[in-house]
Amino acid sequence: MSPTATPRSELSRTRLPAAVTFAATEAAPADQATVRRSNLALVLQTVRTYGPWSRARIAGDTGLTKATVSSLVSDLIQRRLIREGEIERGGAGRPGQLVGLDNTSALFLGLEINVDYIAGVMTDLTGVALARQRLPIDVRGLGPAGTLARTAELVATLLAEAADAEAISVNVAIPGLIDIEHGILAYAPNLEWRDVDVTGTLRRLLTMPRTRIGLDNEANMAAVAEYAAGSAAGVRDLVVITGEVGIGSGVLAAGELLRGTSGFFGEVGHMAIGAPDALCGCGRRGCWEAVVGLAAILRAIADPDDELQDPALDLSTRLQEIEHRADAGDQRTLAGLTTVATGLGLGASILANIFNPEVIVFGGYFAALSRFLEVPLRNEMYPRVIAPDGGGCRIEFSTLGFEAAALGGAHAGIHWVMADPSLVEIPAARSPADSA
Amino acid sequence: MSPTATPRSELSRTRLPAAVTFAATEAAPADQATVRRSNLALVLQTVRTYGPWSRARIAGDTGLTKATVSSLVSDLIQRRLIREGEIERGGAGRPGQLVGLDNTSALFLGLEINVDYIAGVMTDLTGVALARQRLPIDVRGLGPAGTLARTAELVATLLAEAADAEAISVNVAIPGLIDIEHGILAYAPNLEWRDVDVTGTLRRLLTMPRTRIGLDNEANMAAVAEYAAGSAAGVRDLVVITGEVGIGSGVLAAGELLRGTSGFFGEVGHMAIGAPDALCGCGRRGCWEAVVGLAAILRAIADPDDELQDPALDLSTRLQEIEHRADAGDQRTLAGLTTVATGLGLGASILANIFNPEVIVFGGYFAALSRFLEVPLRNEMYPRVIAPDGGGCRIEFSTLGFEAAALGGAHAGIHWVMADPSLVEIPAARSPADSA
Repeated sequence: MSPTATPRSELSRTRLPAAVTFAATEAAPADQATVRRSNLALVLQTVRTYGPWSRARIAGDTGLTKATVSSLVSDLIQRRLIREGEIERGGAGRPGQLVGLDNTSALFLGLEINVDYIAGVMTDLTGVALARQRLPIDVRGLGPAGTLARTAELVATLLAEAADAEAISVNVAIPGLIDIEHGILAYAPNLEWRDVDVTGTLRRLLTMPRTRIGLDNEANMAAVAEYAAGSAAGVRDLVVITGEVGIGSGVLAAGELLRGTSGFFGEVGHMAIGAPDALCGCGRRGCWEAVVGLAAILRAIADPDDELQDPALDLSTRLQEIEHRADAGDQRTLAGLTTVATGLGLGASILANIFNPEVIVFGGYFAALSRFLEVPLRNEMYPRVIAPDGGGCRIEFSTLGFEAAALGGAHAGIHWVMADPSLVEIPAARSPADSA
Repeated sequence: MSPTATPRSELSRTRLPAAVTFAATEAAPADQATVRRSNLALVLQTVRTYGPWSRARIAGDTGLTKATVSSLVSDLIQRRLIREGEIERGGAGRPGQLVGLDNTSALFLGLEINVDYIAGVMTDLTGVALARQRLPIDVRGLGPAGTLARTAELVATLLAEAADAEAISVNVAIPGLIDIEHGILAYAPNLEWRDVDVTGTLRRLLTMPRTRIGLDNEANMAAVAEYAAGSAAGVRDLVVITGEVGIGSGVLAAGELLRGTSGFFGEVGHMAIGAPDALCGCGRRGCWEAVVGLAAILRAIADPDDELQDPALDLSTRLQEIEHRADAGDQRTLAGLTTVATGLGLGASILANIFNPEVIVFGGYFAALSRFLEVPLRNEMYPRVIAPDGGGCRIEFSTLGFEAAALGGAHAGIHWVMADPSLVEIPAARSPADSA
């Protein structure tokens, strides 16, 4: 059979996809329940995308019949995920009552536990923050039990802002290696925690049996926040670098948060790309974190007896002092910032060559000092990326501050409901006494 | 609302997933056609997994009704993707005729164009290689037109091995930056090709209008091969490093091949982790490829007038000579191999820290020289990985030789059919003349 003698059988023409993609996904049986769940998610996501919308428009957008849409909308109203609002007038047919996301019933909480603070954010289903708080705290001194007790108090404080609404999820973010399936922190070197059952402890302290309590890596939750509400909103190929005591990363590839085979994905702080003699908190030498982490910049710009080195100093105050010195033209500060920015650009070029992301977001203290870091960072990074024009990769600095991971925890709960609204069950009829 | 005063409404208990995962997938309308497609894939994959299998067992495995399974099996038989075989006896019910994958009808071809060879592999739907060939060739000298003409001849040679079977897909792998959607090679530095319409040219040369002709990156296809048939078969979190003139990588995360935002994913050869003065073929200094690529090892172990440096020397001969010298205890060769292995371990530690893969596979010339590389590679890599026990990451050397990417091209076509069998249309009834 030569190329010019293609067999002339009457096979109908095979439809050709644009490109063979490879995904080793396993097919699962599709049945009516699967279809219903998928369509519930479709309607909820359509309402989220377009805001208050009529059933007729939902049917038009989704290709579902009007009868199916009506049934799905009723279901979502019963689950208190959408609610009816104003009447749409002026259309061709009968006026329809618009339905929009229900921002009065479901609450989503995100917490972050880091070396010197606990942050908490509470949102509604639309992602609007209803309450937020940040507690300066010495996590190493308090230890896991004391810290988690304070965390539970922070949850209670946030919930006190809510009226008759239900907390759907409480997601905790910690910079460390995490078993997300069991909600256990395996190891957080900078907190000096090991094998802490974070979700089990909080479940006992909170006594909220209907609320999903989860644990995830701080950088992963920061990536979710940047995707959902940050400077890279909607960017599906995204690298987020957190800059605090430790350096971590969260990565979305084609919209999926990458996890690794045992949950240890994204430990970029320990890439061996630094000066061989730079000692890292992990005990190794040459880690990226040892060059660009908070301790490295303090070492570069301040002597041991400098007030900047005082461990009791609040992070914001410390960063303000660094900015102040840089603005005053202090040569040592400016040189230290340029050294950090160059190291940051080197690591960013490696991540751009590997991931070919649309955006790399720098958070934490990198964002706070972006005025001094951005130019030398770009100058180091872009020439080292082999794809033309850096593969199209943009550099952004986070606008979410040190609450990014907490906000991401709240948004992760929202995404979970958006992907499968049937996970929020329909409440049984409530008696008058219960609603008091 | 404090933690101890949870509202006592009669909400039924919300089902809790094990972990909140984050995937910004968009729901699409599910209709009967979607369900049918999904179930066709499910039945085909079940038959692939269990081998010849009865309709009753397929129903048991999938949860579909026997009537639905019968209809789906008939459909797949009409598409010539499965076929009936022997009768199963001895079960409780009526004897059933087993159905298995049809290995007589659908053909999948993979080709790799690299600096000094074209490789081709042809498989059936089960992945068994029916024919394979490797042509030594000077691709830079021939240029795109001459090379693609030779590639088309290789396709014809492979197809000559097949009887009355249909080529479903021809996938070409090239080490370079590729626009997979349009089948265009943007840039292959080591081939010195730029903006070549590979699929358009082959479509004209091959005149096989029903066959899907695709183009992908060589390292991506090597990763597909290792997943489908290599030393990391079935490993869903997988990094594959190719070692030829250039160093590339293909990565699966949770079973998905990572692509990047503009298709430039995985350019690990240009990570700036080498000695700052090492000059790379790309014109930059300090690239990983400049330390561990084929040119680097030749430079380390052989003077410019050494026969090993002769560009006309076949790669296999060259590698045999290197092995020969190492086995003879040549100190310069052994030292050069250790230097390369140490550089390889450093880069591998970075990839292990980032991806937390289950396996890293080294292919190409690294596999050929694995006896000398493995120990120093491991010694450099594992201490640099922050997750305990290297995050569970195993090191493997490819057993697929220099045909890995070609084999991957064939398997990518198989996966495409497995994911959506409806893409292979049902042939119209053939007249006796056609089947002659």
